[in-house]
Amino acid sequence: MNKNSSNIMALTPNTSNKRETVCIFGTGDFGRALGHKLIQSGYPVVFGSRSTQTSSLIPKDAEVLSHAEAAQKAAIIIIAIQRQHYNFLTPLAEILRGKVLVDISNNLKINQYPESNAEYLAQLVPGAKVVKAFNTVSAWALQSGTLDASRQVFVCGDDMEAKQMVIDIVRALGLTPLDQGSLLAAQEIENYPLQLFPMWKFPILLSLGLIAFFFFYCLIRDVIYPYVYENKDYSFFIAISITNRICPILALILLALVYLPGVLAAIIQLYRGTKYRRFPDWLDKWMLCRKQLGLVALAFASLHVLYTLAIPIRSFVRWRISSQTVSQALNNKTEPLDTTNAWLSDSYLALGILGFFLFVLLGITSLPSVSNNVNWREFRFVQSKLGYLTLVLCTAHTMVYGGKWFLSPSSYRWYLPNAYMLSLIIPCTVLVIKFVLIFPCLDKPLTRIRQGWERNPQYSE
Amino acid sequence: MNKNSSNIMALTPNTSNKRETVCIFGTGDFGRALGHKLIQSGYPVVFGSRSTQTSSLIPKDAEVLSHAEAAQKAAIIIIAIQRQHYNFLTPLAEILRGKVLVDISNNLKINQYPESNAEYLAQLVPGAKVVKAFNTVSAWALQSGTLDASRQVFVCGDDMEAKQMVIDIVRALGLTPLDQGSLLAAQEIENYPLQLFPMWKFPILLSLGLIAFFFFYCLIRDVIYPYVYENKDYSFFIAISITNRICPILALILLALVYLPGVLAAIIQLYRGTKYRRFPDWLDKWMLCRKQLGLVALAFASLHVLYTLAIPIRSFVRWRISSQTVSQALNNKTEPLDTTNAWLSDSYLALGILGFFLFVLLGITSLPSVSNNVNWREFRFVQSKLGYLTLVLCTAHTMVYGGKWFLSPSSYRWYLPNAYMLSLIIPCTVLVIKFVLIFPCLDKPLTRIRQGWERNPQYSE
Amino acid sequence: MNKNSSNIMALTPNTSNKRETVCIFGTGDFGRALGHKLIQSGYPVVFGSRSTQTSSLIPKDAEVLSHAEAAQKAAIIIIAIQRQHYNFLTPLAEILRGKVLVDISNNLKINQYPESNAEYLAQLVPGAKVVKAFNTVSAWALQSGTLDASRQVFVCGDDMEAKQMVIDIVRALGLTPLDQGSLLAAQEIENYPLQLFPMWKFPILLSLGLIAFFFFYCLIRDVIYPYVYENKDYSFFIAISITNRICPILALILLALVYLPGVLAAIIQLYRGTKYRRFPDWLDKWMLCRKQLGLVALAFASLHVLYTLAIPIRSFVRWRISSQTVSQALNNKTEPLDTTNAWLSDSYLALGILGFFLFVLLGITSLPSVSNNVNWREFRFVQSKLGYLTLVLCTAHTMVYGGKWFLSPSSYRWYLPNAYMLSLIIPCTVLVIKFVLIFPCLDKPLTRIRQGWERNPQYSE
Repeated sequence: MNKNSSNIMALTPNTSNKRETVCIFGTGDFGRALGHKLIQSGYPVVFGSRSTQTSSLIPKDAEVLSHAEAAQKAAIIIIAIQRQHYNFLTPLAEILRGKVLVDISNNLKINQYPESNAEYLAQLVPGAKVVKAFNTVSAWALQSGTLDASRQVFVCGDDMEAKQMVIDIVRALGLTPLDQGSLLAAQEIENYPLQLFPMWKFPILLSLGLIAFFFFYCLIRDVIYPYVYENKDYSFFIAISITNRICPILALILLALVYLPGVLAAIIQLYRGTKYRRFPDWLDKWMLCRKQLGLVALAFASLHVLYTLAIPIRSFVRWRISSQTVSQALNNKTEPLDTTNAWLSDSYLALGILGFFLFVLLGITSLPSVSNNVNWREFRFVQSKLGYLTLVLCTAHTMVYGGKWFLSPSSYRWYLPNAYMLSLIIPCTVLVIKFVLIFPCLDKPLTRIRQGWERNPQYSE
Repeated sequence: MNKNSSNIMALTPNTSNKRETVCIFGTGDFGRALGHKLIQSGYPVVFGSRSTQTSSLIPKDAEVLSHAEAAQKAAIIIIAIQRQHYNFLTPLAEILRGKVLVDISNNLKINQYPESNAEYLAQLVPGAKVVKAFNTVSAWALQSGTLDASRQVFVCGDDMEAKQMVIDIVRALGLTPLDQGSLLAAQEIENYPLQLFPMWKFPILLSLGLIAFFFFYCLIRDVIYPYVYENKDYSFFIAISITNRICPILALILLALVYLPGVLAAIIQLYRGTKYRRFPDWLDKWMLCRKQLGLVALAFASLHVLYTLAIPIRSFVRWRISSQTVSQALNNKTEPLDTTNAWLSDSYLALGILGFFLFVLLGITSLPSVSNNVNWREFRFVQSKLGYLTLVLCTAHTMVYGGKWFLSPSSYRWYLPNAYMLSLIIPCTVLVIKFVLIFPCLDKPLTRIRQGWERNPQYSE
Repeated sequence: MNKNSSNIMALTPNTSNKRETVCIFGTGDFGRALGHKLIQSGYPVVFGSRSTQTSSLIPKDAEVLSHAEAAQKAAIIIIAIQRQHYNFLTPLAEILRGKVLVDISNNLKINQYPESNAEYLAQLVPGAKVVKAFNTVSAWALQSGTLDASRQVFVCGDDMEAKQMVIDIVRALGLTPLDQGSLLAAQEIENYPLQLFPMWKFPILLSLGLIAFFFFYCLIRDVIYPYVYENKDYSFFIAISITNRICPILALILLALVYLPGVLAAIIQLYRGTKYRRFPDWLDKWMLCRKQLGLVALAFASLHVLYTLAIPIRSFVRWRISSQTVSQALNNKTEPLDTTNAWLSDSYLALGILGFFLFVLLGITSLPSVSNNVNWREFRFVQSKLGYLTLVLCTAHTMVYGGKWFLSPSSYRWYLPNAYMLSLIIPCTVLVIKFVLIFPCLDKPLTRIRQGWERNPQYSE
């Protein structure tokens, strides 16, 4: 039986073992690059063009015909033409009836037109089945074969079979198709290549604001104050000392902001007694950019580590240590070892190192290829358990660091507390609320609510 | 001809361009999330529920019917109900005959029931084709669209066609289906989301044991001994000094343990004269967790680097250097530069830096997305050649570090050698065996054995 | 209707829900491993072998028959035999007519034979449809299930349907098929597993050459010169001081070489007035290995950071600082703080830290799994904008570092300038050209050329 089926296959080589012809309208960069790639993958390609003379740039295995002739040769027509020239397709409407038109166009601005290019195309040629695809791939990447950037091709369209045909082509070219649903998704797909890290906007703007605030705060305390009262020029503190004060503060605050929405959500759920009402919009958005917040925090933590480890190389530090030692020698005295101080200094460093180490672990597990290889329980364990441990360690690191100065009046210059004290507010708040939420009297109802139980069931429907 | 085929397509839009209806039993969290996602991807969805009144939480494009009515509308029925309620399906057996039932359930404990939920479902509804799928995806991830965690969906089932239908749905939702074979695999698939880093258990337990041992060992030598004999309080050594002694020791031992099973396997193969007999079970398991062992070793090496670079910032170290300098100044003498010492110190640092650098390279190539882009020969080159070079460099680093103390009696406190000497035992053993195995008189037969040659062929069959 | 279709399915379980039998010729390692995996995935497997006695190593669910009998049972035959024994297939030509033969063989050397093994097989059995596949997967990886190395399977073949059948099998085994086109691609596919980082060859050879040059250059200036003129033995500088001079030089030069081809290409395009003429071959190749150049540069930068941070731990540095302090104390003088020096030292460190930080960011975004998740605009923003910022910061870091020594005659030993001055040549050239290219009078025509405009259109056709 198996043998039979294979023989039948063998007898029909001419019909079955050919891929379907693909037609490309337009001989611009992208059209040619796509044509080249399609021919490589075994598709016969025919170009539709205004001038049918073959250019040296067009792949030599491809035919170049007029639009009408080319369209008749294929079931799939890729429209590699800019939107403003789409209306030349109107006279071809009859020939294009029933064909699959693949819209690959991009715009120059987000939401440039009221409707997406693909929907506009569907209106112009109502008899055709329009599929949006390929707009996220660059001509250069297709041509050079080095797909360093994304291999993802978003596909959408109203006709399932047409969409499947395009998806098969995408896969045959070695790209990764992602079905985005109906043609309504085209607007979003067309906006996608124009986006510049949309999820990162909030964390980065927030960091810039905080940097500006803490920079001036530290400038006043550490540079202007000694200049006014002691007439000392510490302006060079800007390069390292102040930066290395801002970085850990931002790292700590942003890390705490990663865990704040979680405890807020728990409070809201406890208060409402149900999980079935939507959170306020700002909380939803906040929760969706937690990963980005955490990674920005990690960036500041890494900078803090680099700046801190570079401290002993700074010529100012070398000068200060050397003059202290010289003055000790001149005064003919040796200080004994202060064990308490050694304990404080060592434990503050150890807490910081462990906290940073866990922080880097969190960062590594948020790499797409790593998080793709862990199951949901493992992911939650790392991001929640290890995450809170990181927050505890980093908060403790800051507390032990500042331990001895908390109550010393000399650390309040112009009534301004040391900057690191401000940085402790949010992390301590988060940790205290989280600690309270762990108590069984709150944890139990919360767990039940999260499993679907409702205190006042009428809310949900 | 091509044109014809495309016209035929155009004439049958109503039958071909619709996706098949999917039925979902149960309107809980996961059922609703899955229904939502299915509708987004173009599947008509019908819910089967005890109460047919539509809730505001159910996707509005979905119908809600009784179980029996809903089942009749679709060929695929997703059972989004907990195992303990499966028996309500028994009266529906006739309607479910020939249907594809997708079991998406999870348990609370590993191996909670004697048979997997999917097999239990297959027994309850013998006429249906049961497929296990979707149990590794979380409702929250489906809903929010941010599939940070795994996109992998394990699928298994006895009926190939039913399985293929489910795989097609998985792919249409933008997830990655992984066919795990027959329904027997369901038990393993159901246990998967309950696992917590099973491959990491052995390396982490081993490290904890070694940490405990070396902690007390160093505590006795470095804190208790000076307290007893010199009455000095070095308890603050626990925070950094002792930790920074334990980390490199663990990194070196664990790295050596990555390469030990390889040389043991070579010895066993040489002794047996064949590669066709299975290794003992412990060796097999050991070989499978080499990657995890190596990554834990890398973690300890990174901690060691951080602790070491932080040394000059420690207030104890600053105090020690400063008092040494002061006493030199007071004694009015300047020590000349000891070139041998400078050589030793610099080369020990250089070896450590290069070793750590290669170690990090090994770690980066073991990232899934990187190792996926190298061929087998490149992977072996990195993990084996570069790996041994790392081991050699790290062992040399430890030896040069301790070089001058090996024979000094003062380094034996209470007859206990320095901890780093213990750490050299396994790496040196591995390197010596490996060195012996490189000799042609052993390498040649080993290569032949690994290519399939057998000294006593009767063994294999 | 849907119900009907599902019932039809239910009535034909025996024909539709079985996967097609796969035949494997040869019972060697790879044949057995593949057979095992195929059986796991639900394919009936039959082995064709010279001796039909079943060995204990062959999967027990598989049949072992003579070659002719086995071939008749399946439409797909996997040839798990070495090329030199292919001629035993000639007598089977009649039985193999119309069958799909899967060539999985590899060679020992690149381009070992004039034609690829798959093409040789197609010549030997002209009636069969030859598909090349599976040669990049290792038997060990298949067997152990731990596909740490690549899951990619390159597939090529002249018959589309045969290729599709093989692609379906590849996907069913949980591997990733990549269609490489016609059987002509087989040569390249067979060479692939023999390659050892071909894209890295040029960057690594270039680095080795530069390392050798700068090593001897620094040796002459820093070790031989003081030995000759001051009779001082600084040979221990080789371990860290000279290495830490070579690493930043190489990092800076290689980073500049990443951006040099881009500005060269811009100059060529401006000069020619078109983008449609191919770049010279050396420029094309250079542009394709920019990523590797950048990563090697990052490796040297990381080593530089590690070496620099380890400076305060070096016993030579400790000795030097301590003797300076002692001599200050003995001379009874304290140096005042040199604010200019503090500014220079701090800003040079800050520039270096920021430059390295951005450099690491660039490295992270070039990880396949990360670059796969950004769109083309984001990728270009990171690699081009942030990349140039990194180059500017690193060049500034080097300039500020050497600032005070540029014109000092003492830094010219034997008329040789300091090594870091040489390292500035290429980065400064790149930055100056890039700065010039930003001017509107050059930027505008360049942008137009890159959008397809041609100054002398006759060039292109």
